[in-house]
Amino acid sequence: MTDFMKIALEEAESAAKRGEVPVGSVLISPNGEILAQSGNRTEELADPTAHAEILVIRKAATLLHSPRLVGCDLYVTLEPCAMCAAAISFARIRRLVFGAYDPKGGAVEHGGRFYAQPTCHHAPEVVGGMEERKAAHLLKAFFNVRRGHET
Amino acid sequence: MTDFMKIALEEAESAAKRGEVPVGSVLISPNGEILAQSGNRTEELADPTAHAEILVIRKAATLLHSPRLVGCDLYVTLEPCAMCAAAISFARIRRLVFGAYDPKGGAVEHGGRFYAQPTCHHAPEVVGGMEERKAAHLLKAFFNVRRGHET
Repeated sequence: MTDFMKIALEEAESAAKRGEVPVGSVLISPNGEILAQSGNRTEELADPTAHAEILVIRKAATLLHSPRLVGCDLYVTLEPCAMCAAAISFARIRRLVFGAYDPKGGAVEHGGRFYAQPTCHHAPEVVGGMEERKAAHLLKAFFNVRRGHET
Repeated sequence: MTDFMKIALEEAESAAKRGEVPVGSVLISPNGEILAQSGNRTEELADPTAHAEILVIRKAATLLHSPRLVGCDLYVTLEPCAMCAAAISFARIRRLVFGAYDPKGGAVEHGGRFYAQPTCHHAPEVVGGMEERKAAHLLKAFFNVRRGHET
């Protein structure tokens, strides 16, 4: 499991180099193969929905010719927002593994806690905090530089 | 405003004919032009994120070369889910006008009430219930047929 998070972290690092908020994600098939991996690309694609999780879900769904990714697992370096938490639910993802917790924008352990709502019809198994420090460090370094401070 | 909802309802009707859950959406530029219109296409595109709102946001963002649709309004026949409510926020939509309320899956007036969360950093002006009966009838008819009942 940790190897997949390492790839997600590499995608987050690449995103930072492109000037995107450094979040990375990897989508794993039921038999353990990587179906898709991506960083955040909202600026590059001029698409407010192009979070890393949405991009890997869309790519995997295209590959599997199905909007439902039954038995698949999703790794992401940051706690998903409401948009991504819901997309993960709609895609029937089996297990969600995330890195840093996000009190400002997360919707799994924070905010609307999507998977705990009666309006959520499929909740994945959730593992939070994997490689948390590395994921959080990438984000902190990125925003420090954007604010004009070296890290 | 009602004319835009009528176009959204036509998109919802077209979606039903394609076997998709009948929801339609229209995205309006700051000077009142239609930038994008679409129905739900999750099955056609094998994309769990292809709700009508996401599709019009992505199309308009591509047209405007920006992930932020400042001053734009979004019309949709059904109360947005958490995924779409958050995407509407990220896109900086000025006003959200929706038709039927959705106690089972909505996230504006139901569930996680995304715009009321401290994790929401931009909330549109919200007008709910426009052409509510027509929008709800389309959905009810669609699901009745799917359950084997004529309407």
